[in-house]
Amino acid sequence: EHPYIRAVVDGFDVDFVPCFRVDPEGGLISATDRTPLHTGFVLERLFPGGSNEVRLLKRFMKGVGVYGAEVRVGGFSGYLCELLVIRLGSFVKVLEEAVGWSDGMVLEFGESDSGGIGGEFSNPLVVVDPVDPHRNVASAVSETSLWTFVAAAKAFLDEPRESYFYPVDPQVEASELHGVLRSFGSRLLFVVVDDGDVGVPDVLWGQLYKSKKALIELLRGADFQVVRDGVWSDETSRHLFVFELESDVLGCSKKRMGPPVRIVDDSAHFVEAHLDAEDTVSGPWIEGERWWVEKLRPFRDARSLIDSVLEDGGRGIGVSRKLSIWIKEGGRVLVGDEIEEFLEPGLSLFIYRFLRGKPVWLE
Amino acid sequence: EHPYIRAVVDGFDVDFVPCFRVDPEGGLISATDRTPLHTGFVLERLFPGGSNEVRLLKRFMKGVGVYGAEVRVGGFSGYLCELLVIRLGSFVKVLEEAVGWSDGMVLEFGESDSGGIGGEFSNPLVVVDPVDPHRNVASAVSETSLWTFVAAAKAFLDEPRESYFYPVDPQVEASELHGVLRSFGSRLLFVVVDDGDVGVPDVLWGQLYKSKKALIELLRGADFQVVRDGVWSDETSRHLFVFELESDVLGCSKKRMGPPVRIVDDSAHFVEAHLDAEDTVSGPWIEGERWWVEKLRPFRDARSLIDSVLEDGGRGIGVSRKLSIWIKEGGRVLVGDEIEEFLEPGLSLFIYRFLRGKPVWLE
Repeated sequence: EHPYIRAVVDGFDVDFVPCFRVDPEGGLISATDRTPLHTGFVLERLFPGGSNEVRLLKRFMKGVGVYGAEVRVGGFSGYLCELLVIRLGSFVKVLEEAVGWSDGMVLEFGESDSGGIGGEFSNPLVVVDPVDPHRNVASAVSETSLWTFVAAAKAFLDEPRESYFYPVDPQVEASELHGVLRSFGSRLLFVVVDDGDVGVPDVLWGQLYKSKKALIELLRGADFQVVRDGVWSDETSRHLFVFELESDVLGCSKKRMGPPVRIVDDSAHFVEAHLDAEDTVSGPWIEGERWWVEKLRPFRDARSLIDSVLEDGGRGIGVSRKLSIWIKEGGRVLVGDEIEEFLEPGLSLFIYRFLRGKPVWLE
Repeated sequence: EHPYIRAVVDGFDVDFVPCFRVDPEGGLISATDRTPLHTGFVLERLFPGGSNEVRLLKRFMKGVGVYGAEVRVGGFSGYLCELLVIRLGSFVKVLEEAVGWSDGMVLEFGESDSGGIGGEFSNPLVVVDPVDPHRNVASAVSETSLWTFVAAAKAFLDEPRESYFYPVDPQVEASELHGVLRSFGSRLLFVVVDDGDVGVPDVLWGQLYKSKKALIELLRGADFQVVRDGVWSDETSRHLFVFELESDVLGCSKKRMGPPVRIVDDSAHFVEAHLDAEDTVSGPWIEGERWWVEKLRPFRDARSLIDSVLEDGGRGIGVSRKLSIWIKEGGRVLVGDEIEEFLEPGLSLFIYRFLRGKPVWLE
């Protein structure tokens, strides 16, 4: 996070971000020192009419949900859009090119002294910064954002429509959403967190994504199949995690693998530990080269698993420290239509879209 | 199958198996021509008192369920027991040696001209035949039989008991079995087949194991977790397959993987096929580099899956041709305690042991 000032000037929100004037050949002093260099490069290289092409590209990306390098989006920055247009010539040419992209695609600029340095990055998309060849301008672009853009580009080129640029939010009727929520039933698991101290968006979304990942790993580790996952926040006081499970109740027992018979000590311990244990359903037995045993599951249903783990806020499984405090304070685990008492327009739209599961251009 | 004559001589069942007398250096004419060579080798090499050691070993193996090279057992032949005693010196020394066996263990006999030929076999245990170095005497020994023997050997050496040689079948009370069957409930799936034309045991058990494997693959392919499986036969008119599932009912839908977005044609087909399909629950969506979709399962419960597949006898999924005829004729799929009307002492004991799941020496 850079220190900066926000102000309203002539009715516009303006961010004032300070930086040092540096010699391009020397090193940087602060992270924003590249910005004037970027601006200089774009002003010098963008052809006449190019700004309109950039505007089209940015608006298209915004429409399909991949515009912005912020943590929440994990998409394409404005500077990246400018570079793509400079490099490829026009909005449509960027889309045409994107349709042919492969994984780990590298775009370089002839005038940079990068000399094939693109290979040093491991991001899904690599665009070497012409003013600093050791920087990948597309480092924020997630795999999902990259391929969402590519798929949208293909669909748009096949059948261009204005709605790509200005998608219309559907009117979500409470009764319709209720019906959909009921049809998913308890396979939908929500964690609602009321947060009394929300940080700036990039920090917040970093915490949210980290915590979501921890919860997914918890569920998967307990054999729940997570079909989809999502996270929503009003960015001021409430966050919501949602997980769709293939099934929210598992069989009462599971088969557990033991050591190979030839590892004599481990085998003896395994047999001793499970032979007369209360939670042993059957076995232990030998199958192939190993010992196996059938054990009762400590948690058969996802809600009680999450409930038990969130008693301490989830710190132990990797929920971010700050969020875990608020989860412990007042986190709630809900299933299916229990979420209805928390619905507000933004959240309703999020859940509706989550359950539909389609990119906007397929709606 | 060799042609042979069965007779009763002085109250003993005797099999007369014909063979050709061949020069050990030349080739064989029939598969049984090795037998006199084996007998000759054993008579010449077994030390005084060795036959009692062999008898102990055979009886021990019988007791723990790994004696016999027949298909049903997949265990140690009599000749193999003799070779082990000749090579290792005594019953106890065979057990002591076995505890140190590793996977793909190779035992050779110095006098054979095998010259390290053991490596040409890929069986779990390799014992090079001293009268024919291209033959693995232990080729019938399955992984499970091998490691069952090793585990039993270790347990016996730690605490020798007569019951290893003569395990006592438990008295299975109908009421106790009923209780256990109820506790497993519908997670236990049975297929009962009445067979009007049972072949010789090795052929029959080959068909049964092949068919069981096909049914397991069917269940696993439909996402059912098979904890254990078993097959029983009275070898005259009735066979039974049993599968214990972690859960016999799955979630109503599942997440299905589509093609990578960059494969443009496949992606277009995938989206078109699923976008408005009746069995699409949600999506298709982009996650990472791929398209995904959530689909209704055609079969949520294992019984209806098996029922539907066995309508044609299961030939299509790999059930053996001959069995599939009888399954089509009168195969029945049962769950939980529905099996009770078919119970007879042998089957009760089999199911009881199956559900206990422990090797006899751990009971």
